[in-house]
Amino acid sequence: MYLSYLKSLPQGGPANISSAAIAAGLGLSEIQVRKDLASVSDIGKPKIGYITDELISELESYLGYNNIKDAVVVGCGSLGHAILNYTGFGEYGINMAAGFDVDDSVFGETKAGKNILPMSKLASFCTCFGINIGILCVPESAAQTAYNLMVDAGIRFVLNLTPAHLNAPRNSEIKNVNIAAILAELANHQF
Amino acid sequence: MYLSYLKSLPQGGPANISSAAIAAGLGLSEIQVRKDLASVSDIGKPKIGYITDELISELESYLGYNNIKDAVVVGCGSLGHAILNYTGFGEYGINMAAGFDVDDSVFGETKAGKNILPMSKLASFCTCFGINIGILCVPESAAQTAYNLMVDAGIRFVLNLTPAHLNAPRNSEIKNVNIAAILAELANHQF
Repeated sequence: MYLSYLKSLPQGGPANISSAAIAAGLGLSEIQVRKDLASVSDIGKPKIGYITDELISELESYLGYNNIKDAVVVGCGSLGHAILNYTGFGEYGINMAAGFDVDDSVFGETKAGKNILPMSKLASFCTCFGINIGILCVPESAAQTAYNLMVDAGIRFVLNLTPAHLNAPRNSEIKNVNIAAILAELANHQF
Repeated sequence: MYLSYLKSLPQGGPANISSAAIAAGLGLSEIQVRKDLASVSDIGKPKIGYITDELISELESYLGYNNIKDAVVVGCGSLGHAILNYTGFGEYGINMAAGFDVDDSVFGETKAGKNILPMSKLASFCTCFGINIGILCVPESAAQTAYNLMVDAGIRFVLNLTPAHLNAPRNSEIKNVNIAAILAELANHQF
């Protein structure tokens, strides 16, 4: 949140920014901002605040964005294609290495030049390139089977974009993002 | 989470489920499960637990899934198309009414039969159909402008799938879901 806020500031503005300005921009208290940024940076100075570019670098390095990590997309329907074609992952230190699917009609290159390969190649691909991050966007009914294949292929970090509840082994971390449920909560004002 | 877990249980199993079984399935404590479900349902009985179908209905009604709400998609690139074509929103009480874009090459019907209309029609469409929910998936640089048009069109609840930080009026609620940032956090093990 801090990073995307700082990056959204207009070019050519002042080189520094105060914690008060960041707090106002993000709707947080100044105390919260100082506390959060203290774990990332020690460059804030009284009356000057933070040098914006330095703070951006420190946040990026804290978040690990400097080490590009490869990830794979499992399930290349509309959503999988959208993710493979999205150009914004690089800024967050992520590269989509390839997509995988069981349907041979989607094999080949996407618009953005990413390869879609058969699921049978997932394990050898991930082993060969040392990939342990995957995005799951298969149909709900195929989610557990596809997830099991990902774990077998050595993938430890899974972003689950399906609505399925996955049974996971202990050495795997899953982050569930169910867009339909998030939208329903928003629409029903439950948070 | 409870709802998707209960819906994922195999068909033809027992009609009831204990809070202990739900707790084990979701990796929560039994006390937490009882506490959470107490605000939704009063049908749990000692030794029987919950009647699964009744609990599903109570959760759906609590979450407002019984009243279908219309929503619009603003920005119909790959991600916008994926959302318009996704068939899983109905289960969560949401109907994608139409998509909007500034690029006339995407106007027309999507694979799933949803209309993509020009942005200039957004306000009249939302007014006419009483729509106040929108999903924003334009390019980052166009996000604030598109968001302002959504607010002008009467949209109060916005799911922001762009990485942009939006300046919002007080009577609007934004839920930010930055998939790249979520993936980066997961990959860097920050949560």
